[in-house]
Amino acid sequence: MKIDRDAPVGVFDSGIGGLTVAREIMRNLPSEKIVYFGDTARVPYGSKSKETVIRYSRQIIRFLEEQQVKAIVVACNTASAFALDAVREEFDIPILGVIEAGAKVAAQVTRNKRVGVIATEGTIESGTHAKVLKQIDPEITVIGKPCPLFVPLVEEGWTHDPVTVEVASRYLKELQEKGIDTLILGCTHYPLLRSTIGQIMGEGVQLVNPAYETALELGKLLKEQNMQSTGQGQSDFPYRFYVSDLAEKFKGFANSILPFDVEKTQKIDIEKY
Amino acid sequence: MKIDRDAPVGVFDSGIGGLTVAREIMRNLPSEKIVYFGDTARVPYGSKSKETVIRYSRQIIRFLEEQQVKAIVVACNTASAFALDAVREEFDIPILGVIEAGAKVAAQVTRNKRVGVIATEGTIESGTHAKVLKQIDPEITVIGKPCPLFVPLVEEGWTHDPVTVEVASRYLKELQEKGIDTLILGCTHYPLLRSTIGQIMGEGVQLVNPAYETALELGKLLKEQNMQSTGQGQSDFPYRFYVSDLAEKFKGFANSILPFDVEKTQKIDIEKY
Repeated sequence: MKIDRDAPVGVFDSGIGGLTVAREIMRNLPSEKIVYFGDTARVPYGSKSKETVIRYSRQIIRFLEEQQVKAIVVACNTASAFALDAVREEFDIPILGVIEAGAKVAAQVTRNKRVGVIATEGTIESGTHAKVLKQIDPEITVIGKPCPLFVPLVEEGWTHDPVTVEVASRYLKELQEKGIDTLILGCTHYPLLRSTIGQIMGEGVQLVNPAYETALELGKLLKEQNMQSTGQGQSDFPYRFYVSDLAEKFKGFANSILPFDVEKTQKIDIEKY
Repeated sequence: MKIDRDAPVGVFDSGIGGLTVAREIMRNLPSEKIVYFGDTARVPYGSKSKETVIRYSRQIIRFLEEQQVKAIVVACNTASAFALDAVREEFDIPILGVIEAGAKVAAQVTRNKRVGVIATEGTIESGTHAKVLKQIDPEITVIGKPCPLFVPLVEEGWTHDPVTVEVASRYLKELQEKGIDTLILGCTHYPLLRSTIGQIMGEGVQLVNPAYETALELGKLLKEQNMQSTGQGQSDFPYRFYVSDLAEKFKGFANSILPFDVEKTQKIDIEKY
């Protein structure tokens, strides 16, 4: 099969959080088209089983293939943790996850080799960050902590709120006590709590947001495989958005975090794929 | 079709919360068999659209029909709000929801005719409680308040915690100011926060837990339609549990709220229905 280098990149997430990854791709690879899918009907993935997350990821990749994307970015940490190995074996298309990119930069910046990871229960229980970090540097100690209330607090809009500060202090206490110097924000919603988390952890702890690193990895991959967009056939608005539920609500959130207004979001029946 | 009066009753919920309703049926109608389904792969329903909740409810009712149940209890408030009218039209089997039962008792106990409802966003936005209460008594004023952080706080196990007290105080402030004397706990998880909510609202406010009323309504319906179990063919353990994901985790929670140990929970692929 001949790859169309001007085809779009597929980006998917369990919901809206992956837009933080799409935004970095838009900023860093401005000539690439994007097809975004948010699984808003089945969100969240973080409390679901590996088997279920693999099944959902497979359906979404089939949908993105139908959209003729040239590469896929799994913007959801839980899906990256649970499904990446399985779907890479099944599909021919290049597939990138957010965990590897975040782990690489964490391994680079840590000095005391003690790296913390905050994420959903599923992501932490999978142990994927630890596995990837130890492959890069076996001397790194990884301390994981699930933070299940962070996503509902962000979605409630309480990003700067005493309640959120109290919840975050409790979740992060263990990581402080264990003396980490680097903390991976291992869930796409967590960068929206960056300032609260940064204040609690203090200046001695470097926060890693994998979204930016993932965009750079994608750029590298497209270059290596000679798949960078030529910019030809570029429409005025090179981004398409699909969801499995609540298209209007998604548009509202998208408009608040993307640097432009999303005019159209289409709802599709993902269970058919 | 001849109804087998010794067939089980089907009870379903978006996840684990509906077990509080199943528990009341077990207590109040001890000779009835139960088939319980928890949609743990697609939980929560409270943030999803009406259309999606109807589609999910339809799939679950098809599954329960295959289990040859004689009646169905929609133990999920969001599904009762969004899907009850639609599925009653489509299916021949008697279907009961939790909203009507809760509304009936609230209408009986209120003295100042100011009734509060706390529930998920979907349930509140649907306006179903208000519609049903006004049908019973047009003079009743209904004040609804979505409490999206309550379910994750319960699932985190922080039922008696200063954070939960602070969140609840904030959510309930508006209801206090509006002078309600009756408050419907319109989500199956909320009875687990009963003591916190009760302390904040004070003795002058009556809390209504629709689970108990729903069990009584079911008993009445079975009696009227001559469908009460004869107790014949009763096995040692007349309850069966099905989920769409994480059967083991479900069993743990079920054992903590039911008066016996659940020995087996079976996972099924609900998307096939």
